[in-house]
Amino acid sequence: MSKFLSDNAATVHPKLWDAMRAADSPDLPYDGDALSQTLDDRFSEVFGRECAAIWIATGTAANCLALATMCQPHGGVVCHEEAHIEVDEGGAPGFYLHGAKLMLAEGKSAKLTPADIAAVLDPIRDDVHQVQAHAISITQASEYGCSYRPGELAALGEFAKARGLGLHMDGARFANAVAFLGGSPADAVGPCDTLAFGCIKNGGMSAEALVMFDPAQADLVKYRRKRGGHLQCKGRYQAAQILAMLDGDLWLENARAANAAAAEIAAACGERLMHPVEANELFVRLSAAERAVLRSQGFEFYDWGDDAARFVTAWNTPQEHAVALAKAIASL
Amino acid sequence: MSKFLSDNAATVHPKLWDAMRAADSPDLPYDGDALSQTLDDRFSEVFGRECAAIWIATGTAANCLALATMCQPHGGVVCHEEAHIEVDEGGAPGFYLHGAKLMLAEGKSAKLTPADIAAVLDPIRDDVHQVQAHAISITQASEYGCSYRPGELAALGEFAKARGLGLHMDGARFANAVAFLGGSPADAVGPCDTLAFGCIKNGGMSAEALVMFDPAQADLVKYRRKRGGHLQCKGRYQAAQILAMLDGDLWLENARAANAAAAEIAAACGERLMHPVEANELFVRLSAAERAVLRSQGFEFYDWGDDAARFVTAWNTPQEHAVALAKAIASL
Amino acid sequence: MSKFLSDNAATVHPKLWDAMRAADSPDLPYDGDALSQTLDDRFSEVFGRECAAIWIATGTAANCLALATMCQPHGGVVCHEEAHIEVDEGGAPGFYLHGAKLMLAEGKSAKLTPADIAAVLDPIRDDVHQVQAHAISITQASEYGCSYRPGELAALGEFAKARGLGLHMDGARFANAVAFLGGSPADAVGPCDTLAFGCIKNGGMSAEALVMFDPAQADLVKYRRKRGGHLQCKGRYQAAQILAMLDGDLWLENARAANAAAAEIAAACGERLMHPVEANELFVRLSAAERAVLRSQGFEFYDWGDDAARFVTAWNTPQEHAVALAKAIASL
Amino acid sequence: MSKFLSDNAATVHPKLWDAMRAADSPDLPYDGDALSQTLDDRFSEVFGRECAAIWIATGTAANCLALATMCQPHGGVVCHEEAHIEVDEGGAPGFYLHGAKLMLAEGKSAKLTPADIAAVLDPIRDDVHQVQAHAISITQASEYGCSYRPGELAALGEFAKARGLGLHMDGARFANAVAFLGGSPADAVGPCDTLAFGCIKNGGMSAEALVMFDPAQADLVKYRRKRGGHLQCKGRYQAAQILAMLDGDLWLENARAANAAAAEIAAACGERLMHPVEANELFVRLSAAERAVLRSQGFEFYDWGDDAARFVTAWNTPQEHAVALAKAIASL
Repeated sequence: MSKFLSDNAATVHPKLWDAMRAADSPDLPYDGDALSQTLDDRFSEVFGRECAAIWIATGTAANCLALATMCQPHGGVVCHEEAHIEVDEGGAPGFYLHGAKLMLAEGKSAKLTPADIAAVLDPIRDDVHQVQAHAISITQASEYGCSYRPGELAALGEFAKARGLGLHMDGARFANAVAFLGGSPADAVGPCDTLAFGCIKNGGMSAEALVMFDPAQADLVKYRRKRGGHLQCKGRYQAAQILAMLDGDLWLENARAANAAAAEIAAACGERLMHPVEANELFVRLSAAERAVLRSQGFEFYDWGDDAARFVTAWNTPQEHAVALAKAIASL
Repeated sequence: MSKFLSDNAATVHPKLWDAMRAADSPDLPYDGDALSQTLDDRFSEVFGRECAAIWIATGTAANCLALATMCQPHGGVVCHEEAHIEVDEGGAPGFYLHGAKLMLAEGKSAKLTPADIAAVLDPIRDDVHQVQAHAISITQASEYGCSYRPGELAALGEFAKARGLGLHMDGARFANAVAFLGGSPADAVGPCDTLAFGCIKNGGMSAEALVMFDPAQADLVKYRRKRGGHLQCKGRYQAAQILAMLDGDLWLENARAANAAAAEIAAACGERLMHPVEANELFVRLSAAERAVLRSQGFEFYDWGDDAARFVTAWNTPQEHAVALAKAIASL
Repeated sequence: MSKFLSDNAATVHPKLWDAMRAADSPDLPYDGDALSQTLDDRFSEVFGRECAAIWIATGTAANCLALATMCQPHGGVVCHEEAHIEVDEGGAPGFYLHGAKLMLAEGKSAKLTPADIAAVLDPIRDDVHQVQAHAISITQASEYGCSYRPGELAALGEFAKARGLGLHMDGARFANAVAFLGGSPADAVGPCDTLAFGCIKNGGMSAEALVMFDPAQADLVKYRRKRGGHLQCKGRYQAAQILAMLDGDLWLENARAANAAAAEIAAACGERLMHPVEANELFVRLSAAERAVLRSQGFEFYDWGDDAARFVTAWNTPQEHAVALAKAIASL
Repeated sequence: MSKFLSDNAATVHPKLWDAMRAADSPDLPYDGDALSQTLDDRFSEVFGRECAAIWIATGTAANCLALATMCQPHGGVVCHEEAHIEVDEGGAPGFYLHGAKLMLAEGKSAKLTPADIAAVLDPIRDDVHQVQAHAISITQASEYGCSYRPGELAALGEFAKARGLGLHMDGARFANAVAFLGGSPADAVGPCDTLAFGCIKNGGMSAEALVMFDPAQADLVKYRRKRGGHLQCKGRYQAAQILAMLDGDLWLENARAANAAAAEIAAACGERLMHPVEANELFVRLSAAERAVLRSQGFEFYDWGDDAARFVTAWNTPQEHAVALAKAIASL
């Protein structure tokens, strides 16, 4: 059985287990422990500039806390119409932003350009009868597994600045984007104000990081984290996961492995690919009959509408599984 | 160094580590995994009646999700003026209940009687200008380490029913109460509608259970858990912690150990005790000078106002530490 | 100067002034006065079945209070993508529904059919990751001035019932729809659970009525009205407006006058009409040059996109203004 | 029958009727009309400094919109334990502030001093587990009819500034305070950031003013007013009421009349007075038997607990009613 359902249920990397066990001695509760206290510095190193960072149990919560720094309850957040915050977070943004509105933009491969966003914003009358945008949220890599280039991010940053909007990055698969792009983490986040730095899909257990490039926002985020019931007592086990992920660039190593598996499969898909494969997800045109064939060969994956399938690779996808899937698709 | 600061930062019980590692194989994400699916049945066994149960990362979130089943946004929840939900949850109830009000009652040792609650409710005019109560929240064991007897719970249940109010139990230290009372878990929860079943202070890492004695409420709670950003991807590690705690009554074994340590110390405190010791917390009258003496002997604890100290024992408090503290207090 | 900008700024009908002055003697505050107390009975007469009714200062608030009876904070409300609640209420539904989501459907002339709604609902997975619909909101007459027929409403009622959804009617121009349809008020509201009964655009000053066809919802609505800061001290002036509107069917008389003026103009528009004129609004294809001609002749109206204009008639639109506009359009 | 129940149901001053009728001609909707546009300037004159002002239908909404400029959802507002916002607004602050907390202070005659507020604030730990105060709300005249002197306001302003807190004044009976104090309106509002300027109890029908002494807050307040469903279509009738109240200082004339009637009665109460009479409310110690006597003589008023009564005079309380009540009390 070869699983390509999702990276979100993959097992936990051994180094994270080791780190959690190493943290299993008494320390201060909440985020007062020695490990949690190092997160700001550790992420400042990773991004080459001063930032603040906290642990948080889910990407949904990370995204919401970040957006709360930039969108008031009466405002709106522009995002792609297929963005995770719109489609798969159970209304969490509406909750954490106290009724603020998600304003849906269209864009190729679930990425947004300034023009895509302007198409949403420009028709909004500048009066109190219409909700005004306060922020933009983008996803790196996007929900279709595509990565923003530094130039694209710079353009979005300029646009956001010109319009007075905050810019948030949902980085559930940020590691995969960095690994694909090949540049620095700073290049892959560009001028974003906040980043939900994903660990869980990348071999983590239960901790993501929320990075604020304006450290002055850390205070607000910490109050809101507590208020959301997300300030865990034993925060050192959360911090340990994140720090282990950063140590020796394990996060990039894992992401490269997942991306390599995806690339292996992609090479066999040719015209079947619906989107460029720039991370660890593949959206592949496959008829119902073809999907049945693959499933009969032991491959597990989700249908994507009526005529396609989604395959996701993970940090621990066996190379032979990827090769086998590639062959199977090529043989259809 | 003997630590009596809090049980909330104690290390994780080895059996929970084992259970989490045992869960470290692929399964469905969220709460679709095999372990999470057993929680309803497992808690139904524990309480001897049909109930529904979910994992959730903090007691704060557990309390809030429970209260959301019984209090509408325009209503109120009666709780003790020193209840954790009022004093130490950073306004989370106001957030999760969308602005509902906590209505503060006085009561001995942070416990409430029907008369205590009536003293809050009776002056409220039955009109739309005043917030009406929708629910009651009690804590077992209480914030001062005192346990409700079955008869007390029955009286609260009748009162709640007569007034048309929901009844929630914050059971951050429910295990300690059950261990102290010596009866069944069902006896210790009485007629409550919901229970935040604490694990973390009792040797857990990052999972509490929320138990709904009306299983019909499970649906609402699951939507709200997701909306709160609390539906973790890899729920099997959460479920594993809880199930390990229940297996072979580890939860009661741990609680008995903590209670025994507390009892050891209590026996030395005599008239110094501010509240009966009916769980694993002690509130002890000690002058500043006396506290300084204890600290000089290596004991760690929190001050409780100007003239007292709080000592908390944990599942793994060494017997010799408790004995030493008892002796030290007796010698003051 | 002939104004066709909107009915929402028209002057107040003299009979309403008289009624307000007649109410200008001491009585109980809020809605304890004699007039407010008659609203339930008066609307029960109008609709031929038992209902509850309250006054409320705006249609926005009326819609929101109604929706709060049928949509929980984690749910959604399906409405037309150009519905007033989505486009022109400044995010009030998000506020009053505590973050619930508006789910946008497409439909001809801003009306919705069961198929239009199903197109939104059917792709939603039945899991906690996606917001589930709790209610449907329709507008009678629609935002494009079109009226639902009784058969259309019956079909929507059956659909809503089958899907377990509440059904709300925004009746900002309900009077115009009743006047157009020619049947009873009950026919025009069909099986809706709640109705925001508009008065203000129809010659009122500052009071709409919210009608609940399940009187058991009145209690909730009254608490939420107060909580929204909408329970005015001197409610008798609010009730007086509504009662005067109902007396002798003034509401229908006013609506018929507005509709007649619209019909007069419509007759001159022919193929220019973008939507059937079934109330008091006209959406007319007119080039920029044509609009300039009309404006130079003293007609005031809003542009509707680049190639059209919106004309709205009111209870007091002078017949000669309508005739003049009709002639002017015919002469273009 | 002499009514001393409340000023909140008094009839509307004839000059306000005249002003509303005078506004009954076409103009722009919402607050785009000529009258609404003058409010900023008119209030800037009244207070002798630049401010922004809007109309709003209730004091509850005015208070809530004001507090929303100074308190974030995770913060708190310190107010007197008997403040109207705590006791009589149906939870509206919790709604408009998205779950923020009212933090209750004790203070003589429902007034607060810096020491009263410090007694609430000082025990709050400076950590995320406890809700931190963001603002203070005081009431002028207080809920017990007592007025803050300029020196008292200055002290509160300094305290608020030192603690980084906003300062709001609920001025439901601000006119009565200004009339009592005898100084300028600016003296009576002191260094407050916002003022809910009451008109309705003082002879208005349905409009209060919200004054922001930092005009930069006007934008936020306007978006929130709309979002609360409080932006009425025909705002000119709202503005007309307020402007008529200000014209020729009608507001002070009305308040002086009400205060004079209260003073007349107060002079007969002697030791029976529970609070100084510094506006238009009297809280008078009267046994049940004494209250029965007064009621048998045709006086209407509310009981205040078991041993007292509340009398409220209004702008139109007949002088002979006040004299008669004074005599009746003196004769008890």
